[in-house]
Amino acid sequence: MDPRDPVAVAQGLIACESVTPAEGGALALLEGLLTPLGFEVRRPVFTDQNTPDVENLFARRGEGASFVFAGHTDVVPVGEAAAWTQGPFSGAVRNGELFGRGAVDMKGAIACMVAAVARRPEAGPVAFLITGDEEGPAVNGTAKLLDWAQARGETFSACLLGEPSNPQALGDEIKVGRRGSHSGTLTIRGVQGHVAYPHRADNPIRKLQRALAALMDEPLDQGSEHFQPSNLEVVGVESGAGAFNVIPGVATARFNVRYNDGHTWRSLEDTIRSRLNDAIGGDAYDLVFETNTGDAFLTPPGDFVEAIADAVEAETGRRPALTTSGGTSDARFIRAYCPVLEFGLVGQTMHKVDERVAVADLETLTRIYERALVAAAGERP
Amino acid sequence: MDPRDPVAVAQGLIACESVTPAEGGALALLEGLLTPLGFEVRRPVFTDQNTPDVENLFARRGEGASFVFAGHTDVVPVGEAAAWTQGPFSGAVRNGELFGRGAVDMKGAIACMVAAVARRPEAGPVAFLITGDEEGPAVNGTAKLLDWAQARGETFSACLLGEPSNPQALGDEIKVGRRGSHSGTLTIRGVQGHVAYPHRADNPIRKLQRALAALMDEPLDQGSEHFQPSNLEVVGVESGAGAFNVIPGVATARFNVRYNDGHTWRSLEDTIRSRLNDAIGGDAYDLVFETNTGDAFLTPPGDFVEAIADAVEAETGRRPALTTSGGTSDARFIRAYCPVLEFGLVGQTMHKVDERVAVADLETLTRIYERALVAAAGERP
Repeated sequence: MDPRDPVAVAQGLIACESVTPAEGGALALLEGLLTPLGFEVRRPVFTDQNTPDVENLFARRGEGASFVFAGHTDVVPVGEAAAWTQGPFSGAVRNGELFGRGAVDMKGAIACMVAAVARRPEAGPVAFLITGDEEGPAVNGTAKLLDWAQARGETFSACLLGEPSNPQALGDEIKVGRRGSHSGTLTIRGVQGHVAYPHRADNPIRKLQRALAALMDEPLDQGSEHFQPSNLEVVGVESGAGAFNVIPGVATARFNVRYNDGHTWRSLEDTIRSRLNDAIGGDAYDLVFETNTGDAFLTPPGDFVEAIADAVEAETGRRPALTTSGGTSDARFIRAYCPVLEFGLVGQTMHKVDERVAVADLETLTRIYERALVAAAGERP
Repeated sequence: MDPRDPVAVAQGLIACESVTPAEGGALALLEGLLTPLGFEVRRPVFTDQNTPDVENLFARRGEGASFVFAGHTDVVPVGEAAAWTQGPFSGAVRNGELFGRGAVDMKGAIACMVAAVARRPEAGPVAFLITGDEEGPAVNGTAKLLDWAQARGETFSACLLGEPSNPQALGDEIKVGRRGSHSGTLTIRGVQGHVAYPHRADNPIRKLQRALAALMDEPLDQGSEHFQPSNLEVVGVESGAGAFNVIPGVATARFNVRYNDGHTWRSLEDTIRSRLNDAIGGDAYDLVFETNTGDAFLTPPGDFVEAIADAVEAETGRRPALTTSGGTSDARFIRAYCPVLEFGLVGQTMHKVDERVAVADLETLTRIYERALVAAAGERP
């Protein structure tokens, strides 16, 4: 397979059944492609409690602080296999589109990264930071790979992560940050009793109703310069003894907040507690937050952002919007090591049946990555 | 055992382990006591789908429309057996109190009824309507026993049901009616989605919160002459896909209403639908009501009520209050056949560990039942 051809490389990666946490041959394929291009390749396996072992890949060409292409070869399950019009691991091309799980999220983008470094053999220093644990628990993936690399003395100048950043068409958006995500479980204790004698009981669902209103009714903020408004969703409620004649003794609610740079996880916890205290009183509830997985972050406008935006505009004819919407990504780990931006393919079919990418987009993205690579890493001496 | 001694009869009944639906020997004991007192006794067993077979007892002495003593020999489980200071089926007497499951609810009262008819051999016509399915599903009990008796040509002039009607002391209250009870399940359908993209989802918990407020915030009424205000309790809520990053697609709430004579089950359903329509719109929810188990009813003031109140006052020195509070009872079935009142022992320990009754109360209640019997049924010719 010609590493300069992103379609061939994408087909090769899609054929590897690398549903998280399976490596599926995808990282071995990358090692086989990158080593002849001058990369030193390592494939560390990380382990942790209560989560599967996962294989990762780190590759570097050139000396000094590397420009990093980051991504993941693991994919989500195929879902309803019979509903696919092409085999989900076939890499079939029909009417100018390449089909397969991972075509846009994000084996297609990794193929473009490989093609870019293959077409620019003198560019560098450049590194690949590829995990097999992005769609899963994300415990044995990018976070540990960054630690591992740092411990080996690796340093990074900037990073481009290949998540599908474009809602409709290549060139729409560069992600210059991401909202934070924080989750908690609210437990309200009442007094169980017979429904015919409510004065002897204390129905926690009455307080739950007021707590839900306190959490959801008032927006957390109006958004900020680079971020949309923060949003809290209650994602679960539970109460009841299973009988119509029993007032339950306890009620719970689980919620998640996607928050912007106007909050930290600590200030957000304070805000939520304050709202609950006002609504139902501090003695009425227990509140347990999950381990925080990262505050909002922003890679502010500057040379790196301009260089990537220039690369996109040069190939697509459009100046991409700089956005911070959507879910979390491994950028939340990378941000602690170097400036990180996200630009990849068009996300419309990601995680869906018949995930697919326009073949033309693979060529265009490869050229964008070539320009980004030369602009950010330069030519090696 | 002397049937004129309510303590001995109560101990005999308590010794029968008649936890619903077990007969436990209790009805056989009653047949053995009532037959020598001139009663014709039948013990029909009723059956139905998805509920255990249950034995019942009907006994009559004298001809014509009977005055009825009604009750149940089944009891609730003993609960935490080790916490009882006396065996729950021992019938032990300590410091003037008789201990045992059913001592007040309501084997003790049935013993007083037996003693009353034993002491008044000429009183009648009088009948016993005793079920073994009051604490359970109440499917194969009083409702079917009434049908069965009516089909045999039995008629009733009035009924005294021996449920523990006194909150604190014998003489407190006669129940002259009961609230209705109605239950329903509300299902709110939204659109499931990823928590990072709430605009693509429709979180049903937001509508659930508004529905809960609509159901609970505003009282259904202010009460009526003989009834306390109607009350709605939400007894269960459930929603959630089990993950913090998924907005659920559906939310449910289960509720029960205890309602007074200002409503029927039909008007109540209309009220609830109207509130929900105003709060979240009629297209947002499905609402399924349980089979209704009985509207509120009232045995209005008159000769029968006065006769029973006179009997209570003569023995306790206090004029009992006429109330309609508390849970449902088998009176909801009997009301369709004849006027029904409820007067029994003191309910404080019912269903609890160390259920017990003052021995003196058994003698006093026997005398009250004697007076009620003579006043309501007269002396046979």
